[in-house]
Amino acid sequence: MKEKLTIVKVGGAVVEDEAQLTRLLKDFADIQGRKVLVHGGGRKATKMAERLGIETQMVNGRRITDASMLEVVTMVYGGLVNKNLVARLQAEGVNALGLTGADADIIHSHRRPPVPIDFGFVGDVERANGQMLSRLIEAGIVPVIAPLTHDGEGHILNTNADTMASETAKALAGLYDVTLIFSFEKKGVLSSPDDDDSVIPVITRTLFNQYKADGTISGGMLPKIENALAAVDAGVSRVVITLATAIDGQHGTMIEKEK
Amino acid sequence: MKEKLTIVKVGGAVVEDEAQLTRLLKDFADIQGRKVLVHGGGRKATKMAERLGIETQMVNGRRITDASMLEVVTMVYGGLVNKNLVARLQAEGVNALGLTGADADIIHSHRRPPVPIDFGFVGDVERANGQMLSRLIEAGIVPVIAPLTHDGEGHILNTNADTMASETAKALAGLYDVTLIFSFEKKGVLSSPDDDDSVIPVITRTLFNQYKADGTISGGMLPKIENALAAVDAGVSRVVITLATAIDGQHGTMIEKEK
Repeated sequence: MKEKLTIVKVGGAVVEDEAQLTRLLKDFADIQGRKVLVHGGGRKATKMAERLGIETQMVNGRRITDASMLEVVTMVYGGLVNKNLVARLQAEGVNALGLTGADADIIHSHRRPPVPIDFGFVGDVERANGQMLSRLIEAGIVPVIAPLTHDGEGHILNTNADTMASETAKALAGLYDVTLIFSFEKKGVLSSPDDDDSVIPVITRTLFNQYKADGTISGGMLPKIENALAAVDAGVSRVVITLATAIDGQHGTMIEKEK
Repeated sequence: MKEKLTIVKVGGAVVEDEAQLTRLLKDFADIQGRKVLVHGGGRKATKMAERLGIETQMVNGRRITDASMLEVVTMVYGGLVNKNLVARLQAEGVNALGLTGADADIIHSHRRPPVPIDFGFVGDVERANGQMLSRLIEAGIVPVIAPLTHDGEGHILNTNADTMASETAKALAGLYDVTLIFSFEKKGVLSSPDDDDSVIPVITRTLFNQYKADGTISGGMLPKIENALAAVDAGVSRVVITLATAIDGQHGTMIEKEK
Protein backbone atom coordinates (compact mmCIF):
# COMPACT_ATOMS: atom_id res chain seq x y z
CA MET A 1 0.00 0.00 0.00
CA LYS A 2 1.36 3.36 -1.04
CA GLU A 3 1.11 6.29 1.35
CA LYS A 4 -1.55 8.86 0.50
CA LEU A 5 -0.42 12.23 -0.88
CA THR A 6 -2.66 15.19 -1.69
CA ILE A 7 -1.67 17.92 -4.16
CA VAL A 8 -3.79 21.08 -4.07
CA LYS A 9 -3.61 23.63 -6.87
CA VAL A 10 -4.85 27.08 -5.95
CA GLY A 11 -5.29 29.83 -8.53
CA GLY A 12 -4.46 33.52 -8.52
CA ALA A 13 -8.01 34.62 -7.73
CA VAL A 14 -7.95 32.88 -4.35
CA VAL A 15 -4.45 34.09 -3.53
CA GLU A 16 -5.79 37.66 -4.02
CA ASP A 17 -8.84 37.31 -1.80
CA GLU A 18 -7.91 37.51 1.87
CA ALA A 19 -11.02 35.77 3.23
CA GLN A 20 -10.83 32.88 0.73
CA LEU A 21 -7.07 32.54 1.21
CA THR A 22 -7.33 32.37 5.01
CA ARG A 23 -9.96 29.63 4.68
CA LEU A 24 -7.93 27.74 2.08
CA LEU A 25 -4.77 27.78 4.20
CA LYS A 26 -6.66 26.45 7.23
CA ASP A 27 -8.31 23.75 5.12
CA PHE A 28 -4.95 22.85 3.59
CA ALA A 29 -3.40 22.66 7.07
CA ASP A 30 -6.18 20.24 8.06
CA ILE A 31 -5.40 17.77 5.26
CA GLN A 32 -3.90 14.71 6.90
CA GLY A 33 -0.71 13.09 5.65
CA ARG A 34 1.72 14.09 2.96
CA LYS A 35 0.79 17.08 0.83
CA VAL A 36 1.92 19.65 -1.71
CA LEU A 37 0.52 23.09 -2.59
CA VAL A 38 0.87 24.51 -6.12
CA HIS A 39 -0.12 28.14 -6.59
CA GLY A 40 -0.68 30.70 -9.31
CA GLY A 41 -0.46 34.46 -8.95
CA GLY A 42 -1.32 35.92 -12.35
CA ARG A 43 -3.49 38.74 -11.04
CA LYS A 44 -0.82 39.96 -8.66
CA ALA A 45 1.74 39.80 -11.49
CA THR A 46 -0.54 41.86 -13.73
CA LYS A 47 -1.00 44.47 -10.99
CA MET A 48 2.73 44.66 -10.25
CA ALA A 49 3.51 44.95 -13.98
CA GLU A 50 1.03 47.81 -14.19
CA ARG A 51 2.70 49.61 -11.26
CA LEU A 52 6.03 49.23 -13.10
CA GLY A 53 4.57 50.54 -16.37
CA ILE A 54 4.84 47.14 -18.06
CA GLU A 55 1.95 46.16 -20.30
CA THR A 56 0.41 42.71 -19.87
CA GLN A 57 -0.36 40.88 -23.12
CA MET A 58 -2.36 37.66 -23.10
CA VAL A 59 -2.92 35.28 -26.01
CA ASN A 60 -5.43 32.41 -25.52
CA GLY A 61 -5.39 33.15 -21.80
CA ARG A 62 -1.60 32.78 -21.60
CA ARG A 63 0.81 35.56 -20.67
CA ILE A 64 3.38 36.81 -23.19
CA THR A 65 6.56 36.88 -21.10
CA ASP A 66 9.27 39.20 -22.39
CA ALA A 67 12.40 39.96 -20.33
CA SER A 68 10.74 42.62 -18.18
CA MET A 69 7.62 40.49 -17.58
CA LEU A 70 9.90 37.58 -16.64
CA GLU A 71 11.40 39.80 -13.91
CA VAL A 72 7.90 40.57 -12.67
CA VAL A 73 6.69 36.96 -12.53
CA THR A 74 9.97 35.79 -10.95
CA MET A 75 9.54 38.42 -8.21
CA VAL A 76 5.81 37.97 -7.71
CA TYR A 77 5.40 34.19 -8.04
CA GLY A 78 8.77 33.12 -6.58
CA GLY A 79 9.02 35.88 -3.97
CA LEU A 80 5.93 37.81 -2.94
CA VAL A 81 3.24 35.13 -3.31
CA ASN A 82 5.34 32.05 -2.53
CA LYS A 83 7.09 33.42 0.58
CA ASN A 84 3.91 34.83 2.08
CA LEU A 85 2.14 31.50 1.58
CA VAL A 86 5.08 29.71 3.20
CA ALA A 87 5.17 32.07 6.21
CA ARG A 88 1.40 31.80 6.70
CA LEU A 89 1.44 28.00 6.43
CA GLN A 90 4.26 27.89 8.99
CA ALA A 91 1.95 29.86 11.31
CA GLU A 92 -0.67 27.11 10.75
CA GLY A 93 1.83 24.46 11.83
CA VAL A 94 2.63 23.26 8.29
CA ASN A 95 6.35 22.85 7.61
CA ALA A 96 6.13 24.56 4.22
CA LEU A 97 9.11 25.06 1.91
CA GLY A 98 8.76 27.18 -1.22
CA LEU A 99 10.09 25.89 -4.51
CA THR A 100 10.26 26.88 -8.14
CA GLY A 101 11.18 24.26 -10.72
CA ALA A 102 14.79 25.53 -10.55
CA ASP A 103 15.11 24.70 -6.85
CA ALA A 104 16.77 21.30 -6.48
CA ASP A 105 16.00 20.94 -10.20
CA ILE A 106 12.50 19.72 -9.40
CA ILE A 107 10.87 20.81 -12.68
CA HIS A 108 12.96 21.11 -15.81
CA SER A 109 11.55 22.74 -18.96
CA HIS A 110 12.58 24.10 -22.33
CA ARG A 111 11.56 27.39 -23.83
CA ARG A 112 8.43 27.02 -25.92
CA PRO A 113 9.20 27.28 -29.67
CA PRO A 114 8.35 30.80 -30.96
CA VAL A 115 5.93 29.55 -33.64
CA PRO A 116 3.08 30.05 -34.27
CA ILE A 117 3.07 32.47 -31.32
CA ASP A 118 6.17 33.70 -29.52
CA PHE A 119 5.20 33.56 -25.85
CA GLY A 120 8.72 34.65 -24.84
CA PHE A 121 10.25 33.16 -21.68
CA VAL A 122 7.64 30.47 -21.21
CA GLY A 123 8.62 26.90 -20.35
CA ASP A 124 7.12 23.62 -21.52
CA VAL A 125 7.78 20.99 -18.87
CA GLU A 126 10.22 18.21 -19.77
CA ARG A 127 10.37 16.35 -16.48
CA ALA A 128 9.47 16.65 -12.81
CA ASN A 129 11.85 15.11 -10.27
CA GLY A 130 9.64 12.85 -8.16
CA GLN A 131 12.59 11.33 -6.31
CA MET A 132 13.84 14.71 -5.04
CA LEU A 133 10.31 15.87 -4.14
CA SER A 134 9.82 12.63 -2.26
CA ARG A 135 13.07 13.11 -0.32
CA LEU A 136 11.84 16.52 0.82
CA ILE A 137 8.38 15.18 1.67
CA GLU A 138 9.84 12.26 3.64
CA ALA A 139 11.92 14.79 5.61
CA GLY A 140 8.60 16.20 6.86
CA ILE A 141 8.49 19.08 4.40
CA VAL A 142 5.39 20.37 2.59
CA PRO A 143 6.48 21.72 -0.82
CA VAL A 144 4.80 24.97 -1.93
CA ILE A 145 5.40 25.25 -5.65
CA ALA A 146 5.41 28.49 -7.67
CA PRO A 147 4.64 28.42 -11.42
CA LEU A 148 8.23 28.89 -12.59
CA THR A 149 10.62 26.33 -14.08
CA HIS A 150 14.18 26.43 -15.44
CA ASP A 151 15.91 25.24 -18.59
CA GLY A 152 19.11 23.98 -16.95
CA GLU A 153 21.06 26.70 -18.75
CA GLY A 154 20.55 29.38 -16.14
CA HIS A 155 17.16 30.72 -17.19
CA ILE A 156 13.92 30.89 -15.24
CA LEU A 157 10.83 30.27 -17.41
CA ASN A 158 7.21 31.18 -16.72
CA THR A 159 5.05 28.04 -16.59
CA ASN A 160 1.32 27.38 -16.29
CA ALA A 161 0.35 26.47 -12.71
CA ASP A 162 -2.18 23.78 -13.75
CA THR A 163 0.59 22.10 -15.75
CA MET A 164 2.98 22.36 -12.76
CA ALA A 165 0.37 20.63 -10.60
CA SER A 166 -0.38 17.79 -13.01
CA GLU A 167 3.31 17.18 -13.84
CA THR A 168 4.08 17.08 -10.11
CA ALA A 169 1.19 14.65 -9.56
CA LYS A 170 2.37 12.37 -12.40
CA ALA A 171 5.97 12.37 -11.14
CA LEU A 172 4.80 11.37 -7.65
CA ALA A 173 2.22 8.80 -8.82
CA GLY A 174 4.78 5.99 -8.86
CA LEU A 175 5.65 6.66 -5.21
CA TYR A 176 2.34 7.63 -3.61
CA ASP A 177 -1.43 7.16 -3.85
CA VAL A 178 -1.95 10.67 -5.28
CA THR A 179 -5.08 12.80 -5.13
CA LEU A 180 -4.78 15.97 -7.23
CA ILE A 181 -7.22 18.74 -6.32
CA PHE A 182 -7.76 21.65 -8.71
CA SER A 183 -9.51 24.37 -6.74
CA PHE A 184 -11.28 27.18 -8.55
CA GLU A 185 -14.29 29.48 -8.34
CA LYS A 186 -17.02 26.89 -9.10
CA LYS A 187 -18.26 23.93 -7.08
CA GLY A 188 -17.08 21.51 -9.76
CA VAL A 189 -17.79 20.64 -13.37
CA LEU A 190 -21.38 21.79 -13.93
CA SER A 191 -23.94 20.07 -16.16
CA SER A 192 -25.84 23.41 -16.46
CA PRO A 193 -23.46 26.38 -16.50
CA ASP A 194 -26.16 28.61 -14.98
CA ASP A 195 -26.88 26.29 -12.08
CA ASP A 196 -24.02 26.40 -9.57
CA ASP A 197 -25.35 23.29 -7.87
CA SER A 198 -25.46 21.08 -10.97
CA VAL A 199 -22.12 19.48 -10.09
CA ILE A 200 -21.33 16.28 -12.03
CA PRO A 201 -20.08 13.96 -9.25
CA VAL A 202 -17.88 11.60 -11.28
CA ILE A 203 -16.32 11.77 -14.74
CA THR A 204 -14.52 8.86 -16.43
CA ARG A 205 -13.20 8.90 -20.00
CA THR A 206 -16.36 7.22 -21.30
CA LEU A 207 -18.58 9.73 -19.51
CA PHE A 208 -16.37 12.60 -20.70
CA ASN A 209 -16.79 11.50 -24.32
CA GLN A 210 -20.57 11.38 -23.86
CA TYR A 211 -20.73 14.82 -22.18
CA LYS A 212 -18.48 16.25 -24.88
CA ALA A 213 -20.59 14.74 -27.69
CA ASP A 214 -23.89 15.98 -26.27
CA GLY A 215 -22.49 19.43 -25.45
CA THR A 216 -22.90 19.16 -21.65
CA ILE A 217 -19.21 20.01 -21.26
CA SER A 218 -17.68 22.62 -23.57
CA GLY A 219 -15.28 25.56 -23.82
CA GLY A 220 -12.47 26.08 -21.31
CA MET A 221 -13.55 23.08 -19.25
CA LEU A 222 -12.57 20.65 -22.04
CA PRO A 223 -8.76 21.11 -21.82
CA LYS A 224 -8.97 21.09 -17.99
CA ILE A 225 -10.66 17.69 -18.01
CA GLU A 226 -8.42 16.32 -20.79
CA ASN A 227 -5.50 17.30 -18.57
CA ALA A 228 -7.08 15.61 -15.54
CA LEU A 229 -7.80 12.41 -17.51
CA ALA A 230 -4.21 12.37 -18.76
CA ALA A 231 -3.02 12.56 -15.13
CA VAL A 232 -5.30 9.66 -14.19
CA ASP A 233 -4.02 7.65 -17.18
CA ALA A 234 -0.47 8.34 -15.96
CA GLY A 235 -1.17 6.77 -12.59
CA VAL A 236 -2.60 9.60 -10.47
CA SER A 237 -5.32 7.91 -8.40
CA ARG A 238 -7.90 10.66 -8.72
CA VAL A 239 -8.31 14.28 -9.75
CA VAL A 240 -10.87 16.51 -8.05
CA ILE A 241 -12.16 19.77 -9.51
CA THR A 242 -13.72 21.79 -6.71
CA LEU A 243 -14.38 25.12 -5.04
CA ALA A 244 -11.37 26.73 -3.34
CA THR A 245 -13.25 26.59 -0.04
CA ALA A 246 -14.06 22.85 -0.36
CA ILE A 247 -10.73 21.06 -0.81
CA ASP A 248 -11.41 18.19 1.56
CA GLY A 249 -11.72 15.70 -1.31
CA GLN A 250 -15.40 15.10 -0.42
CA HIS A 251 -16.76 17.84 -2.70
CA GLY A 252 -16.64 18.71 -6.36
CA THR A 253 -16.23 16.58 -9.45
CA MET A 254 -14.12 13.44 -9.16
CA ILE A 255 -12.22 12.42 -12.28
CA GLU A 256 -11.39 8.75 -12.15
CA LYS A 257 -10.10 5.83 -14.15
CA GLU A 258 -12.69 3.57 -15.73
CA LYS A 259 -13.66 0.94 -13.17
CA MET B 1 36.31 14.00 12.07
CA LYS B 2 33.47 16.25 10.98
CA GLU B 3 32.82 16.78 7.27
CA LYS B 4 33.93 20.14 5.88
CA LEU B 5 31.25 22.69 5.02
CA THR B 6 31.82 26.10 3.43
CA ILE B 7 29.38 29.00 3.79
CA VAL B 8 29.92 31.92 1.40
CA LYS B 9 28.21 35.25 1.97
CA VAL B 10 27.98 37.47 -1.09
CA GLY B 11 26.79 41.05 -0.91
CA GLY B 12 24.47 43.12 -3.07
CA ALA B 13 27.28 44.86 -4.96
CA VAL B 14 28.52 41.56 -6.43
CA VAL B 15 25.01 40.35 -7.25
CA GLU B 16 24.58 43.55 -9.31
CA ASP B 17 27.83 43.27 -11.30
CA GLU B 18 27.48 40.70 -14.07
CA ALA B 19 31.22 40.04 -14.54
CA GLN B 20 31.89 39.63 -10.81
CA LEU B 21 28.78 37.51 -10.34
CA THR B 22 29.70 35.12 -13.16
CA ARG B 23 33.15 34.67 -11.64
CA LEU B 24 31.77 34.20 -8.16
CA LEU B 25 29.26 31.54 -9.26
CA LYS B 26 31.98 29.58 -11.07
CA ASP B 27 34.29 29.84 -8.04
CA PHE B 28 31.44 28.78 -5.76
CA ALA B 29 30.70 25.81 -8.04
CA ASP B 30 34.39 24.83 -7.74
CA ILE B 31 34.30 24.64 -3.94
CA GLN B 32 34.55 20.97 -3.03
CA GLY B 33 32.21 19.32 -0.55
CA ARG B 34 29.18 20.60 1.27
CA LYS B 35 28.36 24.26 0.89
CA VAL B 36 25.84 27.07 1.41
CA LEU B 37 25.46 30.46 -0.29
CA VAL B 38 23.98 33.44 1.58
CA HIS B 39 23.20 36.52 -0.49
CA GLY B 40 22.20 40.15 -0.10
CA GLY B 41 20.46 42.29 -2.68
CA GLY B 42 20.03 45.72 -1.13
CA ARG B 43 20.95 47.67 -4.24
CA LYS B 44 18.44 45.83 -6.40
CA ALA B 45 15.78 46.39 -3.72
CA THR B 46 16.55 50.11 -3.65
CA LYS B 47 16.26 50.31 -7.46
CA MET B 48 13.00 48.37 -7.53
CA ALA B 49 11.59 50.54 -4.73
CA GLU B 50 12.51 53.62 -6.75
CA ARG B 51 10.74 52.24 -9.84
CA LEU B 52 7.65 51.71 -7.67
CA GLY B 53 7.86 55.22 -6.22
CA ILE B 54 8.79 53.94 -2.75
CA GLU B 55 11.40 55.94 -0.89
CA THR B 56 14.34 54.09 0.67
CA GLN B 57 15.27 55.25 4.16
CA MET B 58 18.44 53.99 5.83
CA VAL B 59 19.50 54.49 9.47
CA ASN B 60 23.03 53.37 10.47
CA GLY B 61 23.29 51.54 7.16
CA ARG B 62 20.12 49.55 7.88
CA ARG B 63 16.94 49.76 5.82
CA ILE B 64 13.70 51.02 7.36
CA THR B 65 11.19 48.39 6.25
CA ASP B 66 7.58 49.54 6.23
CA ALA B 67 4.80 47.41 4.68
CA SER B 68 5.48 48.54 1.12
CA MET B 69 9.26 48.10 1.48
CA LEU B 70 8.64 44.63 2.95
CA GLU B 71 6.80 43.73 -0.27
CA VAL B 72 9.78 44.97 -2.27
CA VAL B 73 12.43 43.04 -0.34
CA THR B 74 10.27 39.90 -0.28
CA MET B 75 9.97 40.08 -4.08
CA VAL B 76 13.54 41.09 -4.78
CA TYR B 77 15.49 39.00 -2.25
CA GLY B 78 13.21 35.94 -2.15
CA GLY B 79 12.22 36.02 -5.83
CA LEU B 80 14.30 37.97 -8.31
CA VAL B 81 17.77 37.59 -6.80
CA ASN B 82 17.35 34.19 -5.15
CA LYS B 83 15.71 32.39 -8.08
CA ASN B 84 18.17 33.75 -10.63
CA LEU B 85 21.10 32.64 -8.45
CA VAL B 86 19.51 29.20 -8.10
CA ALA B 87 18.91 28.83 -11.87
CA ARG B 88 22.46 29.94 -12.67
CA LEU B 89 24.01 27.62 -10.10
CA GLN B 90 21.96 24.75 -11.52
CA ALA B 91 23.55 25.56 -14.90
CA GLU B 92 26.97 25.25 -13.18
CA GLY B 93 26.06 21.78 -11.95
CA VAL B 94 25.30 22.87 -8.37
CA ASN B 95 22.06 21.42 -6.98
CA ALA B 96 20.97 24.75 -5.50
CA LEU B 97 17.72 25.24 -3.56
CA GLY B 98 16.63 28.73 -2.55
CA LEU B 99 15.46 29.38 1.00
CA THR B 100 14.28 32.20 3.18
CA GLY B 101 14.18 31.71 6.93
CA ALA B 102 10.46 30.89 6.60
CA ASP B 103 11.12 27.89 4.34
CA ALA B 104 11.16 24.73 6.44
CA ASP B 105 11.41 27.15 9.40
CA ILE B 106 15.19 27.37 8.96
CA ILE B 107 15.63 30.82 10.53
CA HIS B 108 13.14 32.07 13.07
CA SER B 109 13.18 35.68 14.24
CA HIS B 110 11.14 38.24 16.12
CA ARG B 111 10.38 41.75 15.06
CA ARG B 112 12.98 44.17 16.39
CA PRO B 113 11.59 46.35 19.21
CA PRO B 114 10.63 49.80 17.87
CA VAL B 115 12.84 51.72 20.32
CA PRO B 116 15.10 53.65 20.02
CA ILE B 117 14.52 53.39 16.25
CA ASP B 118 11.54 51.73 14.60
CA PHE B 119 13.06 49.77 11.73
CA GLY B 120 9.64 48.35 10.85
CA PHE B 121 9.40 44.75 9.60
CA VAL B 122 12.97 43.83 10.51
CA GLY B 123 13.78 40.55 12.22
CA ASP B 124 16.32 39.77 14.93
CA VAL B 125 17.30 36.11 14.66
CA GLU B 126 16.18 33.80 17.46
CA ARG B 127 17.38 30.47 16.13
CA ALA B 128 18.65 28.79 12.98
CA ASN B 129 17.61 25.17 12.41
CA GLY B 130 20.90 23.33 11.85
CA GLN B 131 19.22 19.91 11.84
CA MET B 132 16.86 20.77 8.98
CA LEU B 133 19.63 22.49 7.00
CA SER B 134 21.77 19.42 7.50
CA ARG B 135 18.99 17.12 6.25
CA LEU B 136 18.80 19.17 3.06
CA ILE B 137 22.58 19.25 2.67
CA GLU B 138 22.88 15.49 3.22
CA ALA B 139 20.25 15.02 0.45
CA GLY B 140 22.80 16.60 -1.91
CA ILE B 141 21.24 20.06 -1.83
CA VAL B 142 23.15 23.35 -1.75
CA PRO B 143 21.04 25.90 0.18
CA VAL B 144 20.98 29.43 -1.27
CA ILE B 145 19.72 31.68 1.50
CA ALA B 146 17.98 35.06 1.02
CA PRO B 147 18.08 37.67 3.82
CA LEU B 148 14.50 37.17 5.00
CA THR B 149 13.25 35.39 8.12
CA HIS B 150 9.84 34.78 9.67
CA ASP B 151 8.29 35.21 13.11
CA GLY B 152 6.25 31.98 13.15
CA GLU B 153 3.06 34.05 13.15
CA GLY B 154 2.80 34.39 9.41
CA HIS B 155 5.06 37.39 8.83
CA ILE B 156 8.17 37.67 6.71
CA LEU B 157 10.83 39.94 8.25
CA ASN B 158 13.77 41.68 6.56
CA THR B 159 17.05 40.48 8.08
CA ASN B 160 20.69 41.45 7.65
CA ALA B 161 22.53 39.05 5.32
CA ASP B 162 25.77 39.04 7.38
CA THR B 163 23.71 37.99 10.40
CA MET B 164 21.95 35.27 8.35
CA ALA B 165 25.38 33.92 7.35
CA SER B 166 26.87 33.89 10.83
CA GLU B 167 23.73 32.43 12.45
CA THR B 168 23.68 29.68 9.80
CA ALA B 169 27.37 29.01 10.42
CA LYS B 170 26.87 28.80 14.19
CA ALA B 171 23.87 26.46 13.81
CA LEU B 172 25.90 24.12 11.58
CA ALA B 173 29.11 24.29 13.65
CA GLY B 174 28.05 21.39 15.85
CA LEU B 175 27.57 19.15 12.81
CA TYR B 176 30.36 20.22 10.42
CA ASP B 177 33.86 21.69 10.28
CA VAL B 178 32.57 25.09 9.11
CA THR B 179 34.46 27.75 7.16
CA LEU B 180 32.48 30.99 6.84
CA ILE B 181 33.61 33.28 4.01
CA PHE B 182 32.45 36.90 3.94
CA SER B 183 33.15 38.18 0.44
CA PHE B 184 33.21 41.91 -0.22
CA GLU B 185 34.93 44.57 -2.35
CA LYS B 186 38.36 44.53 -0.59
CA LYS B 187 41.06 41.86 -0.49
CA GLY B 188 40.62 41.46 3.26
CA VAL B 189 41.06 43.45 6.44
CA LEU B 190 43.66 46.10 5.54
CA SER B 191 46.31 47.48 7.90
CA SER B 192 46.52 50.65 5.73
CA PRO B 193 43.11 51.59 4.29
CA ASP B 194 44.78 53.26 1.29
CA ASP B 195 46.90 50.23 0.41
CA ASP B 196 44.72 47.52 -1.09
CA ASP B 197 47.52 45.00 -0.67
CA SER B 198 48.07 45.55 3.05
CA VAL B 199 45.92 42.52 3.95
CA ILE B 200 46.29 41.29 7.54
CA PRO B 201 46.60 37.50 7.07
CA VAL B 202 45.36 36.30 10.48
CA ILE B 203 43.35 37.92 13.28
CA THR B 204 42.74 36.32 16.67
CA ARG B 205 40.96 38.02 19.59
CA THR B 206 44.31 39.07 21.10
CA LEU B 207 45.48 40.53 17.79
CA PHE B 208 42.11 42.21 17.28
CA ASN B 209 42.35 43.92 20.67
CA GLN B 210 45.84 45.18 19.76
CA TYR B 211 44.75 46.43 16.29
CA LYS B 212 41.72 48.10 17.84
CA ALA B 213 43.79 49.77 20.56
CA ASP B 214 46.43 51.10 18.18
CA GLY B 215 43.81 52.24 15.61
CA THR B 216 44.91 49.87 12.81
CA ILE B 217 41.32 48.59 12.60
CA SER B 218 38.46 51.07 12.99
CA GLY B 219 35.03 52.12 11.73
CA GLY B 220 32.70 49.66 9.99
CA MET B 221 35.30 46.90 10.10
CA LEU B 222 35.01 46.64 13.91
CA PRO B 223 31.48 45.15 14.09
CA LYS B 224 32.27 42.86 11.14
CA ILE B 225 35.24 41.38 13.00
CA GLU B 226 33.41 41.26 16.34
CA ASN B 227 30.72 39.25 14.51
CA ALA B 228 33.37 36.94 13.01
CA LEU B 229 35.07 36.40 16.39
CA ALA B 230 31.69 35.62 17.96
CA ALA B 231 31.14 32.95 15.28
CA VAL B 232 34.57 31.46 16.00
CA ASP B 233 33.82 31.48 19.74
CA ALA B 234 30.56 29.64 18.96
CA GLY B 235 32.40 26.80 17.25
CA VAL B 236 32.79 27.94 13.64
CA SER B 237 36.27 26.68 12.67
CA ARG B 238 37.34 29.80 10.76
CA VAL B 239 35.95 32.97 9.23
CA VAL B 240 37.56 34.46 6.12
CA ILE B 241 37.06 38.06 4.99
CA THR B 242 38.03 38.30 1.33
CA LEU B 243 37.46 39.71 -2.15
CA ALA B 244 34.35 38.40 -3.95
CA THR B 245 36.61 37.04 -6.69
CA ALA B 246 38.87 35.16 -4.24
CA ILE B 247 36.62 32.84 -2.23
CA ASP B 248 38.85 29.77 -2.37
CA GLY B 249 39.72 30.08 1.33
CA GLN B 250 43.39 30.72 0.43
CA HIS B 251 43.04 34.50 0.22
CA GLY B 252 41.99 37.33 2.49
CA THR B 253 42.04 37.69 6.24
CA MET B 254 41.57 34.54 8.33
CA ILE B 255 39.83 35.03 11.67
CA GLU B 256 40.69 32.20 14.01
CA LYS B 257 40.49 31.00 17.57
CA GLU B 258 43.50 31.65 19.75
CA LYS B 259 45.92 28.72 19.30
